[in-house]
Amino acid sequence: MLAHIPTKLLKGTGKMRRKDRMLGADETGRILTQGEFGILSTVSADGQPYGIPLSYVYLDSSIYFHCATEGHKLENLTANGKVSFCVVGRTQVLPDQFTTNYESAIVFGQAVEVQGTEKYDALLALLEKYSPGFIESGKEYIEKNLARTKVVKISIDHLSGKSRK
Amino acid sequence: MLAHIPTKLLKGTGKMRRKDRMLGADETGRILTQGEFGILSTVSADGQPYGIPLSYVYLDSSIYFHCATEGHKLENLTANGKVSFCVVGRTQVLPDQFTTNYESAIVFGQAVEVQGTEKYDALLALLEKYSPGFIESGKEYIEKNLARTKVVKISIDHLSGKSRK
Repeated sequence: MLAHIPTKLLKGTGKMRRKDRMLGADETGRILTQGEFGILSTVSADGQPYGIPLSYVYLDSSIYFHCATEGHKLENLTANGKVSFCVVGRTQVLPDQFTTNYESAIVFGQAVEVQGTEKYDALLALLEKYSPGFIESGKEYIEKNLARTKVVKISIDHLSGKSRK
Repeated sequence: MLAHIPTKLLKGTGKMRRKDRMLGADETGRILTQGEFGILSTVSADGQPYGIPLSYVYLDSSIYFHCATEGHKLENLTANGKVSFCVVGRTQVLPDQFTTNYESAIVFGQAVEVQGTEKYDALLALLEKYSPGFIESGKEYIEKNLARTKVVKISIDHLSGKSRK
């Protein structure tokens, strides 16, 4: 599946120092599509950042993840819906050059809980990403746990891909 | 090298929902010591979180990383020194169980630039971690680049290790 990145969303952070390391839409989309997990960065009401690893799916130019119905990150999202989401692709330490080759995609956006069809479709997309051989039993699993699962969408304001290679 | 985690620093976030997934000091120290990279989460003056992958070293119960003398994360750290730092250890997707086994360490602390001996010792520890076969040429590299490199320490307020396995 080729990930579609709307070009208008793709830019440096505005503060990106090394323009030579910016990736294009295709490569940034590949990193977001293939990543096994991403780190969601949120901030608490008193200004304490909080970053945690999450399974996710990149769908319809948004990031979706699911979570329990309460917890630290949900408290933060209630106080401030602005988030950043970072997916790291290939990395390779180069010991003799004192550096590391890497590729990463960093998303900036707004987190909002979704319901109904959008919630179900996101859970189905997570199932297709992580459990492609178990779609039918996965659908039963989704339906059994639907009420105690929240699905959050990150609406992407902008994003950037970076690499050193 | 066995990482020493002061027990007083080790606790859940206070909001950690799944106490059964908390790791002890040894395992949390191993994740921090062995991690190839971590994600630094900072927040801008206007409340936008920002998470980026960084090489780092865990030394003397602190996290150290180096960076250029300007950039987005340094702007954020000037506005608000509170950070979170997340290292992910082993992960294993379990397609038939609709879940993922993982281990992670999440640090909460204050980022401060360091100078002098502390700066040099941190760069040496980074060299020993990432380039153990290149210590002598690495020392030359450190000295050549010292003026255009900043070293930032995350003084750990508290941290938590989590796993599902």
